[in-house]
Amino acid sequence: MEYSLLNKIDSPKDLKEVSVDSLPLVCDELRQYIIEQLATNPGHLGSSLGVVELSVALHYVFDTPYDRIVWDVGHQAYGHKILTGRREAFKTNRMFKGLCGFPNPKESEYDAFGVGHSSTSISAALGMSIAAKLKGENRQVVAVIGDGSMTGGLAFEGLNNASTNPNNLLIILNDNNMAIDPIKGGLSHYLTSIHFSKTYNDIRYRIYRTMKKAGLMSEANRNRILRLSNSLKSLRANANQNNIFEGLNIRYFGPIDGHDVLGLVQVLNQLKTYNGPKVLHIITKKGKGYKPAEEEVTTWHAPGVFDIKTGQRIKKRAEGEPPLFQEVFGNTLLELAERNERIVGITPAMPSGCSMNIMMNAMPDRTFDVGIAEGHAVTFSAGLAKEGMMPFCNIYSSFMQRAYDNVIHDVALQNLNVVFCLDRAGIVGNDGATHQGQFDLTMFRCIPNMTIGVPRNEHELRNLMYTAQLDNKGPFMIRYPRGKGILADWKNEMKEVEIGKGEELKKGKDVAIVGVGPILYTAKKAIERLESENSDKEIGLYDLKFLKPLDDKLLHEIGKQYSTIYTIEDGTIIGGVGSAVEEWMMDNGYQPKIVRLGLPDEFVEHGSQAELFGMLELDTLGIYNTIKGT
Amino acid sequence: MEYSLLNKIDSPKDLKEVSVDSLPLVCDELRQYIIEQLATNPGHLGSSLGVVELSVALHYVFDTPYDRIVWDVGHQAYGHKILTGRREAFKTNRMFKGLCGFPNPKESEYDAFGVGHSSTSISAALGMSIAAKLKGENRQVVAVIGDGSMTGGLAFEGLNNASTNPNNLLIILNDNNMAIDPIKGGLSHYLTSIHFSKTYNDIRYRIYRTMKKAGLMSEANRNRILRLSNSLKSLRANANQNNIFEGLNIRYFGPIDGHDVLGLVQVLNQLKTYNGPKVLHIITKKGKGYKPAEEEVTTWHAPGVFDIKTGQRIKKRAEGEPPLFQEVFGNTLLELAERNERIVGITPAMPSGCSMNIMMNAMPDRTFDVGIAEGHAVTFSAGLAKEGMMPFCNIYSSFMQRAYDNVIHDVALQNLNVVFCLDRAGIVGNDGATHQGQFDLTMFRCIPNMTIGVPRNEHELRNLMYTAQLDNKGPFMIRYPRGKGILADWKNEMKEVEIGKGEELKKGKDVAIVGVGPILYTAKKAIERLESENSDKEIGLYDLKFLKPLDDKLLHEIGKQYSTIYTIEDGTIIGGVGSAVEEWMMDNGYQPKIVRLGLPDEFVEHGSQAELFGMLELDTLGIYNTIKGT
Repeated sequence: MEYSLLNKIDSPKDLKEVSVDSLPLVCDELRQYIIEQLATNPGHLGSSLGVVELSVALHYVFDTPYDRIVWDVGHQAYGHKILTGRREAFKTNRMFKGLCGFPNPKESEYDAFGVGHSSTSISAALGMSIAAKLKGENRQVVAVIGDGSMTGGLAFEGLNNASTNPNNLLIILNDNNMAIDPIKGGLSHYLTSIHFSKTYNDIRYRIYRTMKKAGLMSEANRNRILRLSNSLKSLRANANQNNIFEGLNIRYFGPIDGHDVLGLVQVLNQLKTYNGPKVLHIITKKGKGYKPAEEEVTTWHAPGVFDIKTGQRIKKRAEGEPPLFQEVFGNTLLELAERNERIVGITPAMPSGCSMNIMMNAMPDRTFDVGIAEGHAVTFSAGLAKEGMMPFCNIYSSFMQRAYDNVIHDVALQNLNVVFCLDRAGIVGNDGATHQGQFDLTMFRCIPNMTIGVPRNEHELRNLMYTAQLDNKGPFMIRYPRGKGILADWKNEMKEVEIGKGEELKKGKDVAIVGVGPILYTAKKAIERLESENSDKEIGLYDLKFLKPLDDKLLHEIGKQYSTIYTIEDGTIIGGVGSAVEEWMMDNGYQPKIVRLGLPDEFVEHGSQAELFGMLELDTLGIYNTIKGT
Repeated sequence: MEYSLLNKIDSPKDLKEVSVDSLPLVCDELRQYIIEQLATNPGHLGSSLGVVELSVALHYVFDTPYDRIVWDVGHQAYGHKILTGRREAFKTNRMFKGLCGFPNPKESEYDAFGVGHSSTSISAALGMSIAAKLKGENRQVVAVIGDGSMTGGLAFEGLNNASTNPNNLLIILNDNNMAIDPIKGGLSHYLTSIHFSKTYNDIRYRIYRTMKKAGLMSEANRNRILRLSNSLKSLRANANQNNIFEGLNIRYFGPIDGHDVLGLVQVLNQLKTYNGPKVLHIITKKGKGYKPAEEEVTTWHAPGVFDIKTGQRIKKRAEGEPPLFQEVFGNTLLELAERNERIVGITPAMPSGCSMNIMMNAMPDRTFDVGIAEGHAVTFSAGLAKEGMMPFCNIYSSFMQRAYDNVIHDVALQNLNVVFCLDRAGIVGNDGATHQGQFDLTMFRCIPNMTIGVPRNEHELRNLMYTAQLDNKGPFMIRYPRGKGILADWKNEMKEVEIGKGEELKKGKDVAIVGVGPILYTAKKAIERLESENSDKEIGLYDLKFLKPLDDKLLHEIGKQYSTIYTIEDGTIIGGVGSAVEEWMMDNGYQPKIVRLGLPDEFVEHGSQAELFGMLELDTLGIYNTIKGT
């Protein structure tokens, strides 16, 4: 493809110089460019193809970066990035030191708000829009949110507050998941609807303003009254309030065809002139314009490397390699569920991401995909556990931050038997700072009643899962990393492990490494190198296996034996494994020198896992150098 | 009052033996008993009076404890407690070793699920109801949720999932906040509506089952399709789907008068026979039956001790006493906002609880009560900050657990200038385990870019607030306890403090106490006693003032000077101030003996703050004994 138009677009200013008739061509080129790039440099294909027309229309109509676009989650924002001065840089998308896979204000002034987790856009954009009002700026703020993200409670909280204070927020509901064809010629439908809604809403708004001016609505009670009436309004039969948005006092327009760029431009131009919060509902197709991606939406959400012509995905995994940790989880869960009928599986919208789809296919009645709703996933699990079921609730480590209170208040406080499996713990790689599983060890170590197990390999993961589902273990957390395991022969016979029992992997003199998780294999290699270079050196290696409870017996042995201890973990060095070991040694009267190795007190950007471990000096060389140098 | 009926009710079984005609009398007695008890032993009056009839009707109709009642938040469950064998014990409500102020399964089998925080009931009860289905138990599960709790995103997530799997959940929406009179004679209205809904829903349900049986709805896609159609259904004009619940596929009944106990009994008896998830909407009045409480709802939510006859609240605070910390926050916020026009205030439904109502009354356009929506409060603040405003977001410490990801992902990652004021940090007293502000120091210390300041007294609180609102301070957290401050003369002239700078309060030899917050005054008294008994002892006392960043210079002085350090904090000893000091000493090559004093690794139940500090050996005597004994 020539990219004769796209190649001239280095900013939205250039886009605006394109004649409106040529916009469909710009969309074609943009779509092709995304496909071409992602064929060799993997990323989120389906969702970005779905919003090509929307991306073009938004930058054509709005005055970015003065006007703000907040992309919910943001993995659909590739088109936006390419149109805003990052066409060439996009070749480094998600790479180490390259473009971030999500909008990121540090990267570009066009990225109005940092995103990555779902359902934040309405709340953030509402704040930005109200700030504009307070500052007297005539700024437009647009939130683009998918129907999936709308299932998150935060999105509802945002919607519920959208009309309580003056603002011009435009929420675009990007509805790409309905099993129907895009509505053709929706524009005429929309025009009828817009006309109706305009009159209706204008009246409502005018009544409100008039009451306020007349002092009939006291300022102090204003928000409370509005919010209550919002929540309850839709309980009343009222032919004029026939959808949730109107019920929440937000004008609703649509649905319209999200792949008709000219229609979008026309509608957005009109909506710019309407005051007050409003929703535009557009229908799009994930993977639009690339046939394989249109046909198999889930597979092509993030397909990896592929052949454009044949649509063949190029798998990187070689024969005989270890499986992914998530696959071990998924297969083991089904295996356990077949034996223990109390086991149920809960996932917030990640059945394929965490491989719970294996159990889901076999036991649909005992698996629950609750949508993007981490808090509900945990509290719902608590309810199941309270009645004697044995829930395995799988949530990525960084998403578990969204269910912190649910774990504390609904599970741990009642000491319920819920098994939390935290996938993507530690360094996740190319998804970057928003997705690193950096804090889970610290944030859950301080919660009473928790057991926290960290498998070093697949066999341990399976044993921990087996142990967790035995009677009365209380809240039991198992955290494991993204990506491949260690052992090709992963399917051991499961057995109960003693909770809180660690393991001496290797005896040493004076110096020992103590930690948890697969990073101990890296530590082992560093030790081998150190010892091979200096035959006097004998470095001990210990796997605590459990961050909570700690292995008193093993730690006494370590405390007695070593004058220098390196702790190692794939998590923040603040308050995690290293701190636990330090606390324990202090409490028990040992005074070894302790050096904590782990993730630094900063957000870790994107790159491959190997590159990031290298940068953080947590690869073999890094550990080797650290120990040698101290 | 005689309590001739109530005195015979020692369990719901006894209640069931009362003739239905006498139920209004039972309600009268129950109401009177609650008022009488709360007049001398403070608690949540208004909400409990509002659900007297509902409590009686539920236990009359349902077979508790086999059937489950989940009370959202649970401060309205006093009537429930009194009817379920705790009439006499209720005299110890909220007292040390007495009844818990919230339903608590450890206390009674009638308390089906532990609560305290808002909006959890639907998710938990849904889990319990689905567990019953899976186990083949014909159990009824009822969630009782107020309209205020319905603004929480978690409640929406629960609702959105309620119809995706077979269950018999009954959600009772206790709507007590509308500024209208209870609907009289709502029963006939209800009966019409029930009839309509039954037919309509039965048809819908039958279609779904038929499709499923015929294999037209694949199991794997079932939840996804249902959830999507739920979210989007209400976007379509449809006269048959005229409220949010019907839109989410949940049958809706009501609204009916929640103070008509006979009507409630009749309706609940009918609803018991309907399969599938359903909502009953009842209208109640907070404070019902006690005139002062009906008239001033906010004041009488938790009025403290009062004179029943006169309705006079008996204030305990004496002239010349220090103000509450929250009052210092509230007054100082307004003072700062008058000088800095970028300051805005955000609170999730706690304007009077955190005293932001002071600014709210003076500057309604710059204060935002967002409802019970902690996540939104933080992400909304992030949006405001991104556009240059200076948000002060006040959230109780234990409720901040609900916005953890919002702080990490939406604020800290973008290094935005949001000031978080955590009221009720540390031991909160009679609200008990769900409300202790136990984890905030640990959970936020590990977050990059955070500043964490802990004022020792009112002057420091004001100086921290002043400093936090200066330019480019990034995310700035200030945590302070519930209750009275230290200084009657609280209104100092505010000044900028150096971030990360601690203070030597008292020089010592060999032994020092290092910590943060008002508990240092307790430590000071313990030191005085120790030194008065042994004139050789000289114990140093240090206020770090900031948990993050730490004061390197001061810690070097401490590390050089002392062989034994006691750290002290009003938070968990895992990962907090004590751990930070240990980490620092290790990192910097000091090897003092360190003993961490703080909250133990367990949930701390209710009692007065003084009683709990005594129990935890964190009062003067406890600290004295600890130091003397080691």
